[in-house]
Amino acid sequence: MNINSRVPVGVLGASGYVGEELLRLLTRHPGASVVFATAESSAGERREGVDLVRIADAPFPRAEIVLSALPHGVSARYVNEARAAGKRTVDLSADFRLSPEAVYGLTEVTRPRVAAAELVANPGCYPTAALLALLPLAQRGLIDQSREVVIDAASGVTGAGRTPKQELLFGEVAEDFRAYAVGNEHRQLPELLTTLAREGGFAGDLVFTPHLLPVKRGILETIHVPLTRLLDRATAEGIYESVYHDEPCVMVMHGGLPSLKDVVHRNRVAIGVAAVANVRRPRLTLITAIDNLVKGAAGQAVQNMNVMLGLAETTGLVC
Amino acid sequence: MNINSRVPVGVLGASGYVGEELLRLLTRHPGASVVFATAESSAGERREGVDLVRIADAPFPRAEIVLSALPHGVSARYVNEARAAGKRTVDLSADFRLSPEAVYGLTEVTRPRVAAAELVANPGCYPTAALLALLPLAQRGLIDQSREVVIDAASGVTGAGRTPKQELLFGEVAEDFRAYAVGNEHRQLPELLTTLAREGGFAGDLVFTPHLLPVKRGILETIHVPLTRLLDRATAEGIYESVYHDEPCVMVMHGGLPSLKDVVHRNRVAIGVAAVANVRRPRLTLITAIDNLVKGAAGQAVQNMNVMLGLAETTGLVC
Amino acid sequence: MNINSRVPVGVLGASGYVGEELLRLLTRHPGASVVFATAESSAGERREGVDLVRIADAPFPRAEIVLSALPHGVSARYVNEARAAGKRTVDLSADFRLSPEAVYGLTEVTRPRVAAAELVANPGCYPTAALLALLPLAQRGLIDQSREVVIDAASGVTGAGRTPKQELLFGEVAEDFRAYAVGNEHRQLPELLTTLAREGGFAGDLVFTPHLLPVKRGILETIHVPLTRLLDRATAEGIYESVYHDEPCVMVMHGGLPSLKDVVHRNRVAIGVAAVANVRRPRLTLITAIDNLVKGAAGQAVQNMNVMLGLAETTGLVC
Amino acid sequence: MNINSRVPVGVLGASGYVGEELLRLLTRHPGASVVFATAESSAGERREGVDLVRIADAPFPRAEIVLSALPHGVSARYVNEARAAGKRTVDLSADFRLSPEAVYGLTEVTRPRVAAAELVANPGCYPTAALLALLPLAQRGLIDQSREVVIDAASGVTGAGRTPKQELLFGEVAEDFRAYAVGNEHRQLPELLTTLAREGGFAGDLVFTPHLLPVKRGILETIHVPLTRLLDRATAEGIYESVYHDEPCVMVMHGGLPSLKDVVHRNRVAIGVAAVANVRRPRLTLITAIDNLVKGAAGQAVQNMNVMLGLAETTGLVC
Repeated sequence: MNINSRVPVGVLGASGYVGEELLRLLTRHPGASVVFATAESSAGERREGVDLVRIADAPFPRAEIVLSALPHGVSARYVNEARAAGKRTVDLSADFRLSPEAVYGLTEVTRPRVAAAELVANPGCYPTAALLALLPLAQRGLIDQSREVVIDAASGVTGAGRTPKQELLFGEVAEDFRAYAVGNEHRQLPELLTTLAREGGFAGDLVFTPHLLPVKRGILETIHVPLTRLLDRATAEGIYESVYHDEPCVMVMHGGLPSLKDVVHRNRVAIGVAAVANVRRPRLTLITAIDNLVKGAAGQAVQNMNVMLGLAETTGLVC
Repeated sequence: MNINSRVPVGVLGASGYVGEELLRLLTRHPGASVVFATAESSAGERREGVDLVRIADAPFPRAEIVLSALPHGVSARYVNEARAAGKRTVDLSADFRLSPEAVYGLTEVTRPRVAAAELVANPGCYPTAALLALLPLAQRGLIDQSREVVIDAASGVTGAGRTPKQELLFGEVAEDFRAYAVGNEHRQLPELLTTLAREGGFAGDLVFTPHLLPVKRGILETIHVPLTRLLDRATAEGIYESVYHDEPCVMVMHGGLPSLKDVVHRNRVAIGVAAVANVRRPRLTLITAIDNLVKGAAGQAVQNMNVMLGLAETTGLVC
Repeated sequence: MNINSRVPVGVLGASGYVGEELLRLLTRHPGASVVFATAESSAGERREGVDLVRIADAPFPRAEIVLSALPHGVSARYVNEARAAGKRTVDLSADFRLSPEAVYGLTEVTRPRVAAAELVANPGCYPTAALLALLPLAQRGLIDQSREVVIDAASGVTGAGRTPKQELLFGEVAEDFRAYAVGNEHRQLPELLTTLAREGGFAGDLVFTPHLLPVKRGILETIHVPLTRLLDRATAEGIYESVYHDEPCVMVMHGGLPSLKDVVHRNRVAIGVAAVANVRRPRLTLITAIDNLVKGAAGQAVQNMNVMLGLAETTGLVC
Repeated sequence: MNINSRVPVGVLGASGYVGEELLRLLTRHPGASVVFATAESSAGERREGVDLVRIADAPFPRAEIVLSALPHGVSARYVNEARAAGKRTVDLSADFRLSPEAVYGLTEVTRPRVAAAELVANPGCYPTAALLALLPLAQRGLIDQSREVVIDAASGVTGAGRTPKQELLFGEVAEDFRAYAVGNEHRQLPELLTTLAREGGFAGDLVFTPHLLPVKRGILETIHVPLTRLLDRATAEGIYESVYHDEPCVMVMHGGLPSLKDVVHRNRVAIGVAAVANVRRPRLTLITAIDNLVKGAAGQAVQNMNVMLGLAETTGLVC
């Protein structure tokens, strides 16, 4: 592929864990050319062959599309600056995820809207892993909304960002495991519920509890789903198979359950199904896994960018 | 304390993770003297100042009480041999946990029966952490048995034993996280349900899903409890406080939630309570933590031994 | 690249850590097509889109080149079988590393011989990291052979293989660190010394001490080099720069020192230099890092294969 | 032991990793009673049953002895304040280690001076592990001072303190390993050399290179010693045995080498010896291990306190 045929891409916020992954993916992407990447404290350094500049010096006009991995609360301002300069944008922060201005970029679900979007809000990591598992059941009316859906999720620490905090030190996290934002306090919960309602018609209750894992990357979600009717494992797997059999970035397990090692460093969500013995009413337990930095962030952003640009969807990605 | 006043104790199975912890606790116990400790492949070696012998050479008559950390399925035979020799016994395996011959040694719940027991079945690690949190609510009729209790538990790898298996290698477990025995398939579930029924009158449904953590020791359980009536956090904490305020080995959190670091290397269960926002029917989320090798195994065995022998209950233990 | 233009490759021993990495690299390699991959206990399973077969069923004639990641002591037999079938081979085991039948495949050093070789012995992981740092100094007569070179090396546990052993369990390795084969007992030492003599003229003494790190992958070597004359850091870096400036897989640091994160998942050796204060005679400390599974094994094997086939040397590799 | 017979102890700086360990040891110490403990940002909190106060509020007069785990550069001021109030002191910082005002508290070496000291400078973690191994050889003239002693040391991250820094985040340290202060730049090197000269008569060169391990606690040092004459392993072990056989806190290995798990959570240094094959001149490799927070800091401070107070030296310690 000729360098001249590469799409010029700008990256905002390239020094956090997500931004670093994004820069790594885009600099190896055969259809993209990173024309600038910003970072504040690391400005002047070279990463993956790109010279980092301060955001005030970002040459927006040189890019055709801008991807932002800036922090929540900061990102919107600069994304809007890129939009004002006439650029298409993918925002990896939470700033536009609940906004009607943006298309929610859960690629497998909203692909046609992503293709036409000027601004894509890249989904949160936890919702990505939950929604791809729950939506097929919700859309078929299989979730019993008179009982609660319970999700216990666990994430590697890169999900908590790179800003130094005592509770994220190796000496604190290693050999530890803890729940946080317990009692439906997590910021990504409204995004999850809103999308589950909009795309799946779900109006029931849901209890979401994230945990901090002593690993660098990866999310595993254990999703307890009350059902409106009995569904054995194979039938449930068949539903996922019918929905996702042409999707390169969704791996439906057959008789197995995923763990982090099935997904790290890949732009993939893995979905497994287990029947539940010794309970009186029908239910299933789903296990889903993603790499929080890839399908949960930078990888899905590239996937969305590919869709927006009309490139093959997995260009530059390993699914 | 005079050495002559120390109770002579025998240990069966001292080379696994639980047995090693048991030997460590007992050799530092001011009221006990380890008169023998068995191990098969390590026989002839010296550990914590004790010479390990083969079980065939165990001098049962020299001990007043025998504690067994032998594997499930093997332990019963040798515990019965010790009983036949007239010895009181604590079995740390699962072999007697559902047997009417043994007293179930969840110390805080069955203390008077433990004191008088000839044979104590030491509880499993997962049930210990779950029962001490669930029983006070069950006994008060606070659990709504028309909805399922959901428990997601995560354990360090010493809970899976010391026998070499590929899936327990560092190269497999590090940076990974996975669920296992999904769908109520775990061996300790009948023990949990039986005790919850017998001691708490619970007859509802429960979904129990264990996970394997990349840490050496510690269990955290996230317990989702549907309630028969609204209960705020402080009121729930008050219930635990009223039940456990004289218990040295139970730590009730006030407005906080425990993590593994609150309990490792201690004979303690820590219990925390969180209210759940944005759900229509009353429920709580409980977080409990124990060290699977201490309060979940060897420590509780020593605690039970102390009760049986009329010693101060925490002798030789750090709670 | 047309599938028809891809070179048909056979893989022996695809289920260990090295074989798994090799299969991953080759199935994503744009110039190669894996026509078979063998594994014994996993035969019948599918990995990276390839159906694993027993080695007895390996269709040698279908391959143009065969790479073996079989264990030491086993590999030679099957490599010879492939050679007897007229195939070019790369052996990743230690079986041919000291044999005159094979070309030693330290690509940057022996490239022309590799290009012409029928059988390439892929170097050991520790020697690869040590030799690329020591040879430029040895070849220039800069190492004082009247004093000992001291190398302390540390490797992640995938270097110890995937066969279950108690000392490799997560419960043993996590939070531990130990030296092994202390006192020049490591199997790869003769390979290191032989090559240092043959390619660098080094005839001095060397003390090599490997350590086991609680990480999955990566090797760091701290190399203490007595010098024949004073050499400051910048001058030493200049030597490496002059030797390696056209080498895509060697990263010479300038004023910094590498750590594992600079090299994992890359086919790269990173070399850093430090001056030593407060000693009376001239010396340097070198720090080198590689990924033991990539530049230390599977990656370098692919690099050698590319050279043998006349492909661009880094095809299918991230350096 | 009656509470009235307990020595009143004050602790300065109880919220770092060392201070936390010190508080844990002292609150369980049967001959000590913690009468105050200071911490700045955690003042007002309760730890190990002690209410933390700001250092400005420390009631020095209530203590008989004061131990300081304050940071280097800060500690001296408050230790001097305690001394001005007439208190005996143990300073765990580096502030007095090179000062003639203080006794250097390497207990096994300077015990009589410690017993009489008003101010004890508790040794650094790296020197403690190195000196107890090197001094017996140095004192016997066995170290060949015409060749360099080379020490490669690796420490768990609690050795780097609890102040949040990006390079100490779990996301940076996990799966990484790196050298630092390479080239004899480490702050503890003058302390090591000074003591080796003063107590061992060593005047040769030494190269010391510390590394950061992805573990919470523990130090392993690989010490390469050129010898003045041949010394086999057993003879060297015999020297250590003769020096240390009455020392409860030194474990001399016989035919084995220590790893971190032999020492963590214990106030112990473990020393192992290996002969070196295939070198022309006599040398040994020593492996030593300590817990950086115990024998490398808080434990040795308590050991020194016990000596100062005339208590049994291991009171409150597990060696």
